[in-house]
Amino acid sequence: MTLLEGRRLAEKMLVALREEIVSSKKKVRLAVVVVGSDPVVEKFIAQKQKAARAVGIDVRIYPFEETVTTNDLRKRIAKIVHEKKNTGVIIQLPLPPHINKQYILNSVVHKKDVDVLSARALGNWIVGKSPVMPPVAGAVKTLLDEYQISYRDKYIVVMGAGGLVGRPVALWLLQEGVTFGIITKAHPHSERLLKEADIIISGVGKPGLITGALTREGVVVIDAGTSESAGKLVGDVDFDSVAPKTSFITPVPGGIGPLTVAVLLKNLWTLAKTRDTY
Amino acid sequence: MTLLEGRRLAEKMLVALREEIVSSKKKVRLAVVVVGSDPVVEKFIAQKQKAARAVGIDVRIYPFEETVTTNDLRKRIAKIVHEKKNTGVIIQLPLPPHINKQYILNSVVHKKDVDVLSARALGNWIVGKSPVMPPVAGAVKTLLDEYQISYRDKYIVVMGAGGLVGRPVALWLLQEGVTFGIITKAHPHSERLLKEADIIISGVGKPGLITGALTREGVVVIDAGTSESAGKLVGDVDFDSVAPKTSFITPVPGGIGPLTVAVLLKNLWTLAKTRDTY
Repeated sequence: MTLLEGRRLAEKMLVALREEIVSSKKKVRLAVVVVGSDPVVEKFIAQKQKAARAVGIDVRIYPFEETVTTNDLRKRIAKIVHEKKNTGVIIQLPLPPHINKQYILNSVVHKKDVDVLSARALGNWIVGKSPVMPPVAGAVKTLLDEYQISYRDKYIVVMGAGGLVGRPVALWLLQEGVTFGIITKAHPHSERLLKEADIIISGVGKPGLITGALTREGVVVIDAGTSESAGKLVGDVDFDSVAPKTSFITPVPGGIGPLTVAVLLKNLWTLAKTRDTY
Repeated sequence: MTLLEGRRLAEKMLVALREEIVSSKKKVRLAVVVVGSDPVVEKFIAQKQKAARAVGIDVRIYPFEETVTTNDLRKRIAKIVHEKKNTGVIIQLPLPPHINKQYILNSVVHKKDVDVLSARALGNWIVGKSPVMPPVAGAVKTLLDEYQISYRDKYIVVMGAGGLVGRPVALWLLQEGVTFGIITKAHPHSERLLKEADIIISGVGKPGLITGALTREGVVVIDAGTSESAGKLVGDVDFDSVAPKTSFITPVPGGIGPLTVAVLLKNLWTLAKTRDTY
């Protein structure tokens, strides 16, 4: 069993990114729109901020009250998006339930959409015309490539179809022409499908969802689930029972999480460089 | 075994559509861009034309020489798209191999993109902001709904990941949150996955790809494959060996084909009605 050390890979990526950005002398700024306050979300933002500053990317946080309306938020984001100094804009998720999430995400112009969550950026990406890919999908690809795990000829199972993990990962596999399955709920077939998998990519947000009894020997497991348990970040995978059966597995924390931040910052830099042509 | 009679359902849809269009007194026109000439393609176009005229939709064919360049074609399509009389525009596929297909498809503005093949229309659709869906996916959904075949809690296998069948069907299932698999090539797992399927939707274009030995008792089979054999249109499914094992199956011809044309025309009418808001 080999640990897929996302954190180490992320650090390597950030060092290379820093070199590029510093030597270019370009000013790059990430705008982060945050609605309301939540200690877990703030921890995520702090991670992005720390990594960004370390590579020479400026970060500007735009905080909004929890009670802001969709229309107000959209208008104010429009200004943030059109501010020249903001090279890229992210809308920190989750948004409060009264906000029309997709309408807000669509207000980020594709040239600045580092998360690839607007309709426009998603559409461009699906047809192969985007220079960047959604950060979690990018992190999964980076990890598989780095550890030379071939996946195009494998059967991959994606757990969950959420907007941040399952959907972008499935869209990526669809573009790559990979044979894959996506399991969205408990199902008479789920266990057999999961047991068939060569690679499992999970992003449900349910601790202990995947146990050793559900996987086969030699499987590759990538845990992109995020939940909180007793103040600690936990994934979907019951590491202790699953790890001994795997050929490769991500730790949580230290796996997909830090790599996703690194891909996000790399996306920002790519969009900064391709601004005039994309 | 029950036949999923796409043709009959299509006729019903077209009658209702005709009533709506005629009573509205709106003028609706479908522009069809055709590059080169091919007898099979011409048959498809003739089918669309016949169905359109029957419901009161005008059709205008824009033929181009096989040797047209991508840039020339794009410029001339821009004019066709901006022509007010053209309510909807389709680019007849396939295009010659020297043409940059997606670049051409992207030249159809989303408000007129009845096939939902441009980056913009696809992106809008994926995030739930399109009033129409890709015709083949719409035809599959219409058929399942009409025959009251519940699919949201089933395991569906999609064969092939092409732009006209596999990809849009997979994108639709992803939006619906269905547990599904997509098989893109022969694979050590393919047979077991296929045998697990409650519903099979095939769009590969390989006659005889799916035989009775590969499916389980009671399966629902939707054949959206199209190839030609000895001048006849054939699907992917070996009907004689598969049909006896199914609960429902589409015939070819007379299944998904005519229904796809009906959905395309319904899309055109929907886009005509929502032009000012979409």
